[in-house]
Amino acid sequence: MPNHIVSSYDTELENLRRSISEMGGIAEKMMTDSGNALVRRDVPLAQAVIGADKRLDALQHEIEERAILLIAKRQPLAIDLRETVSAIRVSNDLERIGDLSKNVAKRVVAIAEQIQPQKIVIAVQHMGDLVQEQLKDVLDAYASQDVKAALDVWERDDAIDALYNSLFRELLTYMMEDPRNISFCTHLLFCAKNIERIGDHTTNIAETIHYLVTGTNELAEQDRPKNDASNYATVSLPASA
Amino acid sequence: MPNHIVSSYDTELENLRRSISEMGGIAEKMMTDSGNALVRRDVPLAQAVIGADKRLDALQHEIEERAILLIAKRQPLAIDLRETVSAIRVSNDLERIGDLSKNVAKRVVAIAEQIQPQKIVIAVQHMGDLVQEQLKDVLDAYASQDVKAALDVWERDDAIDALYNSLFRELLTYMMEDPRNISFCTHLLFCAKNIERIGDHTTNIAETIHYLVTGTNELAEQDRPKNDASNYATVSLPASA
Repeated sequence: MPNHIVSSYDTELENLRRSISEMGGIAEKMMTDSGNALVRRDVPLAQAVIGADKRLDALQHEIEERAILLIAKRQPLAIDLRETVSAIRVSNDLERIGDLSKNVAKRVVAIAEQIQPQKIVIAVQHMGDLVQEQLKDVLDAYASQDVKAALDVWERDDAIDALYNSLFRELLTYMMEDPRNISFCTHLLFCAKNIERIGDHTTNIAETIHYLVTGTNELAEQDRPKNDASNYATVSLPASA
Repeated sequence: MPNHIVSSYDTELENLRRSISEMGGIAEKMMTDSGNALVRRDVPLAQAVIGADKRLDALQHEIEERAILLIAKRQPLAIDLRETVSAIRVSNDLERIGDLSKNVAKRVVAIAEQIQPQKIVIAVQHMGDLVQEQLKDVLDAYASQDVKAALDVWERDDAIDALYNSLFRELLTYMMEDPRNISFCTHLLFCAKNIERIGDHTTNIAETIHYLVTGTNELAEQDRPKNDASNYATVSLPASA
């Protein structure tokens, strides 16, 4: 037997789920589009990403407000309370993912006119593809409340961090080789950092799914399999410089 | 007459306020210490900042849990509900401020051994001082529920963004002048970006105070006086290079 008897509670929960799903769709699209805009130097596509962010912000405010009212009015218990709290948390992460994609899009506009070593753009795109997959998988896991799939996403964040670290060093090396690369590579560095942080938000969502299904914050309290070597990385000049 | 009659509700709200105040103290200290560690190349101080973050994370989880339970158990109305929701939002921002300060501290460890043009470190510190003041002012405004002071913080974010933009260009110029500066300046760029984002979180807190006191999300829905030119900035090589 469910631990609540007011059937309109189910309707309200279902509406929250639908709004989260809409947010997930927008965030995924913003991320894909900003990546494509970067690779193709597509300024109109980048502008579209920047414009899409408003809707995501509005949805996040709406979800938070509805969830809080639901808690106050219905005093949900156990799983229902957790699902409502989870909606607030996930909507926060999706809103941040939108912001980070928007920031990538703004940088696409900045560097569209510059000489771009395509090889390094491809490396950033490769990282973007991996994170895009994480985002898709974690949204599926959320919709199906699949804690095993969530754990899988959580564990894969390490590989993305490792990729970011090697990209960080590669970009620094490009800058040192030719100062004409500096401005462009700096923007790419921030793009890569934004993508890495989108990865962190998918990990947050994985932790929320774990909390939602198991009722504990255990996963969130564990140290993540985090590889943050780039924060400590330095690159020396090649001997010839 | 207050719109609630259960006096233990007041006690629980008071406890929430106290925890937020503890978080604010820790976040402020982490920010000051990371700035000092950067200027003095003080690795042990940077390590202390990294260590302090755990307590902040734990407090944030605790506040969120207590606030949600309070809403579910007591069904607060109007101002009491807003204060409880605000506690969740502010604790989120303070936790992020701690993360960003921790990231600055990690970079201090990375660059401690490198040649450092002190002039540019001082420019980053100057920006840090301005944001530190914003953080102090917004925490005072939150404690006294002073919406005028909060609005003042909100409006000053523009100046910090402008400072970040000029710093961004300056750092790029340093890198172009001498490739030996690239690794160090890249870490400083991320430090400056972290500080600018701490400024964004103080602006979020200012918006929460406005919501808390007035009961509307009007301020949060307005466009911020945001100056994000650095996302679009490029710097060309000096003619001599």
